[in-house]
Amino acid sequence: MSNKIYFTPGPAQLFYTFEEHLKRALFLDIPSISHRSKDFIRIVEETNEGMRELLDLPAGYDIYYLNSANEAWDRIIQNLVSKRSHHFINGAFSRKFYEFALLHGKSSTATEAEDGGSFEAFEIPRGAELIGITKNETSVGHSFLESEIEKLRKENPDKLIALDVVSASPSLEVNFQNIDTAYFSVQKAFGLPAGLAVWIANEKCHEIAEERSITTSLGSYRTLPNLKKFGDKSQTPETPNMLFIYLLGKIAQDILSAGVQRMRNDTIYKATLLNQAIENHPHLAHFVSSKEHRSKTTIVASTKKAAEFINYFQQRGLILGTGYGSHKKNHLRIANFPTHSKESVEMLCDLMTKIE
Amino acid sequence: MSNKIYFTPGPAQLFYTFEEHLKRALFLDIPSISHRSKDFIRIVEETNEGMRELLDLPAGYDIYYLNSANEAWDRIIQNLVSKRSHHFINGAFSRKFYEFALLHGKSSTATEAEDGGSFEAFEIPRGAELIGITKNETSVGHSFLESEIEKLRKENPDKLIALDVVSASPSLEVNFQNIDTAYFSVQKAFGLPAGLAVWIANEKCHEIAEERSITTSLGSYRTLPNLKKFGDKSQTPETPNMLFIYLLGKIAQDILSAGVQRMRNDTIYKATLLNQAIENHPHLAHFVSSKEHRSKTTIVASTKKAAEFINYFQQRGLILGTGYGSHKKNHLRIANFPTHSKESVEMLCDLMTKIE
Repeated sequence: MSNKIYFTPGPAQLFYTFEEHLKRALFLDIPSISHRSKDFIRIVEETNEGMRELLDLPAGYDIYYLNSANEAWDRIIQNLVSKRSHHFINGAFSRKFYEFALLHGKSSTATEAEDGGSFEAFEIPRGAELIGITKNETSVGHSFLESEIEKLRKENPDKLIALDVVSASPSLEVNFQNIDTAYFSVQKAFGLPAGLAVWIANEKCHEIAEERSITTSLGSYRTLPNLKKFGDKSQTPETPNMLFIYLLGKIAQDILSAGVQRMRNDTIYKATLLNQAIENHPHLAHFVSSKEHRSKTTIVASTKKAAEFINYFQQRGLILGTGYGSHKKNHLRIANFPTHSKESVEMLCDLMTKIE
Repeated sequence: MSNKIYFTPGPAQLFYTFEEHLKRALFLDIPSISHRSKDFIRIVEETNEGMRELLDLPAGYDIYYLNSANEAWDRIIQNLVSKRSHHFINGAFSRKFYEFALLHGKSSTATEAEDGGSFEAFEIPRGAELIGITKNETSVGHSFLESEIEKLRKENPDKLIALDVVSASPSLEVNFQNIDTAYFSVQKAFGLPAGLAVWIANEKCHEIAEERSITTSLGSYRTLPNLKKFGDKSQTPETPNMLFIYLLGKIAQDILSAGVQRMRNDTIYKATLLNQAIENHPHLAHFVSSKEHRSKTTIVASTKKAAEFINYFQQRGLILGTGYGSHKKNHLRIANFPTHSKESVEMLCDLMTKIE
């Protein structure tokens, strides 16, 4: 890796042990061994066990491997929604999930807030089968609160809840008991290259997909029942991205060894530093107005001088994220992932004060 | 990488320059840069240009990135087939493509030969919209001849032809003028880890998918029209497997620099050696009886002593492939890909004579 530090919110800085594990993976010929071999099945088991412990997954929540969060949107709608889902939208990624539902011909509905705004109403239309929530809206730095998810769970015991944990897991604590399915791509908080995503689904999801499969095409060979059929043997229907599954397991193990709580405490400490730097700077302001909804993993500042900030840091080897979509020129986005050391964030905040 | 040499037909031996390019990719921060950046667009352009030259693609044939050949089967059926396709089946992978068509609710038909057998009739049912052919049936080592593809093309100018070039490209010469769409996964003849596939589609495919999209859901966000919308800007709808796209381009460039014709001549030389070794061995026989249909990239021998051969070679660091599926215990499969040096194949053949 170069000497730069990527604070971009994905693709992001690689995890600090990535290269070491990559070298070991090549020494072990992980990309060349059979994906049906006992050795590879053991690797899938280890990665699954690591993820299960790291995310504190309850029993009955299974792990499957996809290639992107976009694919997870396809799969969730295809497998779990017959007529309509309901989506909470306050940014580009939560909107995309809703748009995927429409693309699949569903009569889905949405509760919309302005970009980065909080939601005030949590009523769900009666016919909705699944509620789509974004734990961390990476485009604008808004976090859905655990208490809000819990409220939705209590008021809608009959509906599935799908949680987008892209750039949230493993940094933010999520009570998976309150949701039925979740997904993330590995190029964010896990510090891996893009090309792999994790899809978590519980027994309720399996029942629904299984029942729907009797009368309906679930739209792909990668149906939930087929993923489960292979997954129950720690396998995948096709040859998967074996190298990245191995590396994900190793990184999960590293975070576990260093301590999940410590990593989460560090996340809060670094977010606090970054938030203070924004508050103390004359040219920066928080984009998300509700303090408690501000993301701890994707810090977003409004500014009229985004290009100046980005150039200043770039010259010093620190790569900040631009705004997303229509916010491209008016936002700074700063990722705060497990691989970002406290020292690197302190350095970033120190430099911030020098920009006039 | 270890000192072993994998002659398994996929996942396979990594390309001999893989590690060098991987190091360079990490130095350049390829996994961390934005997938919307000019730098990454340039990488996609370079990989596309390399693939185009290496495969000698005609104008109007576009390149898209998927994650597996399995996904290509989904996409081809979803985008290009309304009612039925017709498949030539003589092994597990050609059969799978047919089964995918049925899974998607198509009334597809098939011309079946026994595993590894050649086809005698090439008539296509009238209503078939697409003909599915497997250039190299990796499960049993049968190759479809260019003359057979040409015959199908001439007799069916109104139908699409989809060619599976997994473990065929870039080793075998394919006249892409005779087909409309093709696909391969990179963990075979290109010597990359699994997790990326290339999908080639011509203008006729675009027209059909575009027209179908007006009235029908094409089953995913990864429709051909959407892939084209992004592909025309050398981009992808989602964050793709950027690292492997970069590495694929570099390996394509290496093969081009050394000379495509030379690599193909070497493929023939190595296949000749392996075929002779089979013919000269009392315990081995060719599985594919038709000499001209024997694959040059996946050499398959029938034997009652498969386990002995595999163990003997394994002890010497050479990993041979077992038979596929029901042939597991009665076949040896030996890959002959660009990364396998003439010297390594000569060594393999020498050792072969020592097994009694």
